[in-house]
Amino acid sequence: MTNKKAWSGRFTEPTHPLVEEFNASLEFDYRLYKHDIMGSIAHVKMLGRQKIILKKEADAIVKGLKKVEAEIESGKFTLDIADEDIHMAIERRLGEKIGKSVAGKLHTARSRNDQVATDLRLFVRDAIDEIVILIRNLQKAFHMKAQKHVNTLAPSYTHLQPAQPIRLAHWFLAYYEMLERDANRFLDARKRVNVMPLGSAALAGTNFPIDREWVAKQLKFDAISENSIDAVSDRDFVVEFLFTVSLTVTHLSRLAEELIIFTSAEFAVMELPDAFCTGSSIMPQKKNPDVPELIRGKTGRLNGHLVAVLTTLKGLPLAYNKDLQEDKEPVFDAWDQISLILEITADMVTALAVDKEKLEKRAGEGFMTAVDIADRLVLEGVPFRKAHEIVGKLVRLCTDNGLDFMGVSTDSLQKISSLLPSAVKKGGDATKSADGKDVVGGPAKKRIEARLKKIEREMKKW
Amino acid sequence: MTNKKAWSGRFTEPTHPLVEEFNASLEFDYRLYKHDIMGSIAHVKMLGRQKIILKKEADAIVKGLKKVEAEIESGKFTLDIADEDIHMAIERRLGEKIGKSVAGKLHTARSRNDQVATDLRLFVRDAIDEIVILIRNLQKAFHMKAQKHVNTLAPSYTHLQPAQPIRLAHWFLAYYEMLERDANRFLDARKRVNVMPLGSAALAGTNFPIDREWVAKQLKFDAISENSIDAVSDRDFVVEFLFTVSLTVTHLSRLAEELIIFTSAEFAVMELPDAFCTGSSIMPQKKNPDVPELIRGKTGRLNGHLVAVLTTLKGLPLAYNKDLQEDKEPVFDAWDQISLILEITADMVTALAVDKEKLEKRAGEGFMTAVDIADRLVLEGVPFRKAHEIVGKLVRLCTDNGLDFMGVSTDSLQKISSLLPSAVKKGGDATKSADGKDVVGGPAKKRIEARLKKIEREMKKW
Amino acid sequence: MTNKKAWSGRFTEPTHPLVEEFNASLEFDYRLYKHDIMGSIAHVKMLGRQKIILKKEADAIVKGLKKVEAEIESGKFTLDIADEDIHMAIERRLGEKIGKSVAGKLHTARSRNDQVATDLRLFVRDAIDEIVILIRNLQKAFHMKAQKHVNTLAPSYTHLQPAQPIRLAHWFLAYYEMLERDANRFLDARKRVNVMPLGSAALAGTNFPIDREWVAKQLKFDAISENSIDAVSDRDFVVEFLFTVSLTVTHLSRLAEELIIFTSAEFAVMELPDAFCTGSSIMPQKKNPDVPELIRGKTGRLNGHLVAVLTTLKGLPLAYNKDLQEDKEPVFDAWDQISLILEITADMVTALAVDKEKLEKRAGEGFMTAVDIADRLVLEGVPFRKAHEIVGKLVRLCTDNGLDFMGVSTDSLQKISSLLPSAVKKGGDATKSADGKDVVGGPAKKRIEARLKKIEREMKKW
Amino acid sequence: MTNKKAWSGRFTEPTHPLVEEFNASLEFDYRLYKHDIMGSIAHVKMLGRQKIILKKEADAIVKGLKKVEAEIESGKFTLDIADEDIHMAIERRLGEKIGKSVAGKLHTARSRNDQVATDLRLFVRDAIDEIVILIRNLQKAFHMKAQKHVNTLAPSYTHLQPAQPIRLAHWFLAYYEMLERDANRFLDARKRVNVMPLGSAALAGTNFPIDREWVAKQLKFDAISENSIDAVSDRDFVVEFLFTVSLTVTHLSRLAEELIIFTSAEFAVMELPDAFCTGSSIMPQKKNPDVPELIRGKTGRLNGHLVAVLTTLKGLPLAYNKDLQEDKEPVFDAWDQISLILEITADMVTALAVDKEKLEKRAGEGFMTAVDIADRLVLEGVPFRKAHEIVGKLVRLCTDNGLDFMGVSTDSLQKISSLLPSAVKKGGDATKSADGKDVVGGPAKKRIEARLKKIEREMKKW
Repeated sequence: MTNKKAWSGRFTEPTHPLVEEFNASLEFDYRLYKHDIMGSIAHVKMLGRQKIILKKEADAIVKGLKKVEAEIESGKFTLDIADEDIHMAIERRLGEKIGKSVAGKLHTARSRNDQVATDLRLFVRDAIDEIVILIRNLQKAFHMKAQKHVNTLAPSYTHLQPAQPIRLAHWFLAYYEMLERDANRFLDARKRVNVMPLGSAALAGTNFPIDREWVAKQLKFDAISENSIDAVSDRDFVVEFLFTVSLTVTHLSRLAEELIIFTSAEFAVMELPDAFCTGSSIMPQKKNPDVPELIRGKTGRLNGHLVAVLTTLKGLPLAYNKDLQEDKEPVFDAWDQISLILEITADMVTALAVDKEKLEKRAGEGFMTAVDIADRLVLEGVPFRKAHEIVGKLVRLCTDNGLDFMGVSTDSLQKISSLLPSAVKKGGDATKSADGKDVVGGPAKKRIEARLKKIEREMKKW
Repeated sequence: MTNKKAWSGRFTEPTHPLVEEFNASLEFDYRLYKHDIMGSIAHVKMLGRQKIILKKEADAIVKGLKKVEAEIESGKFTLDIADEDIHMAIERRLGEKIGKSVAGKLHTARSRNDQVATDLRLFVRDAIDEIVILIRNLQKAFHMKAQKHVNTLAPSYTHLQPAQPIRLAHWFLAYYEMLERDANRFLDARKRVNVMPLGSAALAGTNFPIDREWVAKQLKFDAISENSIDAVSDRDFVVEFLFTVSLTVTHLSRLAEELIIFTSAEFAVMELPDAFCTGSSIMPQKKNPDVPELIRGKTGRLNGHLVAVLTTLKGLPLAYNKDLQEDKEPVFDAWDQISLILEITADMVTALAVDKEKLEKRAGEGFMTAVDIADRLVLEGVPFRKAHEIVGKLVRLCTDNGLDFMGVSTDSLQKISSLLPSAVKKGGDATKSADGKDVVGGPAKKRIEARLKKIEREMKKW
Repeated sequence: MTNKKAWSGRFTEPTHPLVEEFNASLEFDYRLYKHDIMGSIAHVKMLGRQKIILKKEADAIVKGLKKVEAEIESGKFTLDIADEDIHMAIERRLGEKIGKSVAGKLHTARSRNDQVATDLRLFVRDAIDEIVILIRNLQKAFHMKAQKHVNTLAPSYTHLQPAQPIRLAHWFLAYYEMLERDANRFLDARKRVNVMPLGSAALAGTNFPIDREWVAKQLKFDAISENSIDAVSDRDFVVEFLFTVSLTVTHLSRLAEELIIFTSAEFAVMELPDAFCTGSSIMPQKKNPDVPELIRGKTGRLNGHLVAVLTTLKGLPLAYNKDLQEDKEPVFDAWDQISLILEITADMVTALAVDKEKLEKRAGEGFMTAVDIADRLVLEGVPFRKAHEIVGKLVRLCTDNGLDFMGVSTDSLQKISSLLPSAVKKGGDATKSADGKDVVGGPAKKRIEARLKKIEREMKKW
Repeated sequence: MTNKKAWSGRFTEPTHPLVEEFNASLEFDYRLYKHDIMGSIAHVKMLGRQKIILKKEADAIVKGLKKVEAEIESGKFTLDIADEDIHMAIERRLGEKIGKSVAGKLHTARSRNDQVATDLRLFVRDAIDEIVILIRNLQKAFHMKAQKHVNTLAPSYTHLQPAQPIRLAHWFLAYYEMLERDANRFLDARKRVNVMPLGSAALAGTNFPIDREWVAKQLKFDAISENSIDAVSDRDFVVEFLFTVSLTVTHLSRLAEELIIFTSAEFAVMELPDAFCTGSSIMPQKKNPDVPELIRGKTGRLNGHLVAVLTTLKGLPLAYNKDLQEDKEPVFDAWDQISLILEITADMVTALAVDKEKLEKRAGEGFMTAVDIADRLVLEGVPFRKAHEIVGKLVRLCTDNGLDFMGVSTDSLQKISSLLPSAVKKGGDATKSADGKDVVGGPAKKRIEARLKKIEREMKKW
């Protein structure tokens, strides 16, 4: 069952079978096969160019590697836990294809330490590139929804209590902004991901006259690492990736929470299409917002991955330690989860039904123009704190008597303040309230339209 | 591709294909099949006993479920993502075996909410029972090693600096004590795990005259839940399990760290057998302590699971929400990891080689009897703080001149304090130092022997 | 500015001023003064009894310590950062009171390592005892509310969608159950907290003939530690305490979320008294549920403390390391937060206003008796899965036409299933629905009343 | 005891005293006073410019605010918990100074929601700017040490086992690289911190014709927020700051771990000056590396803060919720900790003593040139995997017989491989080994010197 290990020269005892299982990363790191082969091809071509191995040896290895890749992709290649990891598995298979003595030259001038760090960086780089595309698609969905709902008046909330009338577009665009930051965070992280450790070997570089810049160019790395010890010890790129994923999904957990609340029977201002819900095995009336709930729930899992790797790195001496093998599964799972979440969320936002009529009705309730009435008083010279107090009394009067602002008699208004009747008249309208917020970033129609236009210009640069 | 869902009556639109993938838990919850079938059998027998369904229907379902179980175990049963989860998969297959109309009665008087909570509790209970056995085995390994090393003098450390001479047994037994607490924590957690939610249905119980106590007895539950809303919302048992796993592995991370340090070339007082190490793909001389490194590294992953579920539960309204589906994977992985870790650690501790000679040499170095010399001064009436200062000066004298305590001339000792020559003579011996600590929990030979005996008595109660 | 340190004998250089600030724990560990003095008194009395120091010395120290305590409590005692920690500060002050040479004997046969572990255990034990009382008070508040609302029909939710009619008492009691588990977890943790490390000295016990059992008895410890290395390295009791706090507050975060939702303008079935809300500095109409929001928010902070200490312990070699100084602030803050949270929550739950009328109206909406109608069909011999489907169609018919169950014509019911008219008639009532769930843990009136009685019996044992 | 609250108009009941304590943030947010006043001054000047208030009112407020600031800085201003937060406290004091009616105009066109977000951003921006300076200082310390130790041969480690000979400068520079990434991460984060939310008011902007760009310019913000709902809900800048702190300190925890190990009695290749160590209250010989231990321990606390805020944000609906008040304490503590840690670490690295002789001796031990010997074989045409095996056998021969490479007879070498005698001769030297790694990022002398030069050029741009 146990193959002879690539490193077994000095060992007299075979590996403990449980240890073999414990050490083996093949079960998950097979996912790096494409990046591993890509990296190996660049490396071996360089070995040939630099005359470290013969050109024909390099050619044979490249050809062999491509065959191995084809075998993996066609499912013909069976993995064996005794191979430890995907790197060894590929090299073993290469040996079977082109002969061990030539295949053995592939590993010249490198170590698994720099090899695996390179592979994982290539993987994370690809993940980031795809995530940014998926974020952009979701931003487009929000932009599209916002465009549709520039004219939909809606309540806004703080503390889940009615706050002020807005246009629904404004709410959609809030999520656009969060995602904009997320995309930028991923792009910033990418700069630090896209640095090539290959050539650092175990931790001290190599005796062979390799050409790291040439390899980096083949693999589209922006830079090469400046210190070989750091290069094999560094998992910042993993942690930064996981953090950026966590924060992005945290944003979507806020959206999820709002969708769950807004589609509840009591709010009922939005509805998720059946395609995004499931029923109950026992209650036939149920239509449950499973998708947003899962997104919200998965935030925990993604935070967990971040904590996992940060904890693993704590107090770890330089350079490579086996603890670092724990870097891969969180990356793979984070990528799997966020890519699915982003794609589904984009479809869900696009398909989200909005009850415009009910939203507009709500926008007129809940005393949400209180601040506008207060502001009218301020325009008449009342200090803001005083105006706030006057309108506070008006609200109490209304709630005590079950009235809304418009329902209070002029007399009663006057009793509170002589300026109130006119202030209520001018300030009490929901649409005017929204459009009165004529500041950059505000919910006034023209401001929203301006933002939408600006976003369209930004989109062209994506 | 999409089966008709068990809950699709009120739905007009099929589930979005990505949502199907997103919602499906079958990929991981298939691991609950045994507990699910066990629970279903108890439930359906009770339905028969209570005449909620016909006796012969109950019999047919039981027989059918056993067949499905056999199919799963023989690998004949192929899972289909459209089944959503293992519970639906089993019920579908049951329908194919015994006819849908009878199979459909299995789900009478229960819901997936109470069913899944029951299954997972059964799983966690089994996991705890096996973990406690594995902890006991590891405790035995430490006890055995301690027995072997009662007479091995060794240095002890605080701040990784030499502290006081001990007997190596004492160090092994420190880990025994941690594991004793771990076992007790698991047993305490078990009390709260082993409460049956079945019968709570979706969250409000059932109209059928079920007999929960009878089912609980069949399934060896200690108690039944007292509130149906809580019963389907509660994942305390998951979090408490994950916490207890985390803390146990945290203990082993400390052992791992010490083994890594003690087997370093510089310490070199212990050696791991080849079977627990691996080499390097590039450096032929390497023998790396991969096993302790992985254990240390995996602490992060297990803390991550704890954080994941705690985060998921934060702010979740009652009762069941789909977020809770995120409870299973952490449990499965925590169980997989800790069971392997405990088993390997027991083997590794057993196989651990100790360089007795070097340890004993070290026990005599590093001024580790300084406190004993100070204590001798105290016996002569010197306040402890003063005695400490005197010996501090002696240490400085030694380090400045490259001497150990015994190498300082009587004159020089006298110059520091007239009481010092006699104190150094009486207090400076490492063996006497260890045996002088004749207190419960101390490293004196007779105290260690007493502890070993007491442990043997405790072991009989396991 | 720098005092002479108690350990400075072998040092030639003073401590770096920033290091002094960095190391000092006095700023927070002054909170241990009471437990430190209590522990010191028991220790020094024992030293006298065992004739390790003179009886009169012991008496003088005890008297001196009591004076120092009185000074601290009256605010007369000024702390100095150069004292490093509260233990040194007290000893210094003791020396000033009774003379350095006698005061210096207090530290005989102990070390700061066992001293600080003992103090912190005493603190945590007290915290647990008070927390359990606060939990019991909160449980009483839930019990009282439940008693008041046995007859209040209410909707229940899964996925925040209407599920089944319950009695509101049932919802209150769900939280009672969570807290019952929390109290038990604290009591289980207490067993492991209440073990005395004193006598372990630095890590290897002491040369003096101390009597640990006697000291433990004075300090009401249940047991003494069995291994001196473990005793000074162990912070399990801290982590277990923090975990138990986290989980308790996680439960309250769920209550908080529900209160925030249920008091929203759209749900509006409950109301928080003004005393638990605040307003807005700008929006005069606002009444915000600040208290539940803060409780929900603070869950993060408490999880953070748990992560902090778990991370700190990861990979820490035995025995004491300075890293462990990071154990105290999380404990103090966790205690401050949870005690305030529990007390406020009890008052808030007690004062919570419930809109009974609206709740009962809601209990009759949302097709929440769907499962009852399906169950009626099952009683007529329809397999449950089929019955579910039939009622699902009925729900769709209703939602398409804006009807509730009672509003559908007999003809239309018949078209779906001939058994439906009778099933709807018998199963469609909300009160009957709740009371039909006549199982242990269910929302039927008599079951709730039985539970309330059982709780009263349990309360007597508290 | 309770002041009249700024928002109390609609309230009929006073705040519960415990709630007052619970809600109050004054105890910690007083630290924002400087940024709060700075923000208020810019805001009120703009109100004057825009004629929203009278010029002379604006002037009076500005003057008053400066007086309040002076009072706070001189310690004359006593805070009162009933003020709730620093913003209210300042405004109250302003009212006492210049009269309530003018002071009340300060809050025109803003809300505490945008005000507090602005203040905290200003605080974090300042913190980042100072942290970057502190990081740069620490980088300089590493650069300086590296310069000193270009010629110090040293062992390097992977898995804490001897790996390959390096120059000690290379190890110092590894930490330089980590800090370079940290500085860049802070600078990237700064871009997202330095966006002004002021003008977003409660969440919907304001009716007054404010000039946000002008205010932003005064406060040196790079940009203004584009969506008012997002602006008051967004705490990304807090989380990103906390993450960046965590990762930086994680790097320093690795340094700390290495210093603890390297200064152990067994390694003893480095020594910390007394000024960075403390002794033991019981063991007079002790000199403990407290500073690195505390740094390592504090990593937990900083990770805890990150988890805290991420957890708090999970599932939070838009816009502002009181949960967000939990954002400040983690920021303040993270800043306090990291600034102290960075400063102390710079001093400690600078003062670190290195035992050059012992390091160089060690560099020649541990078979660390094994890979060099293997590489020599490769140059003779042996495939790398085969060469690895040959040297592995040689290592085994050496360890079995207690020899180093040079001690093996030519005969014995020949028996393993005829190419070995020459390979050992050429490859076995430690200095040649280090200098043979003549690749970018490698430990060859000229590569290190090149890197040092390049860093000097980079430093000029700081």
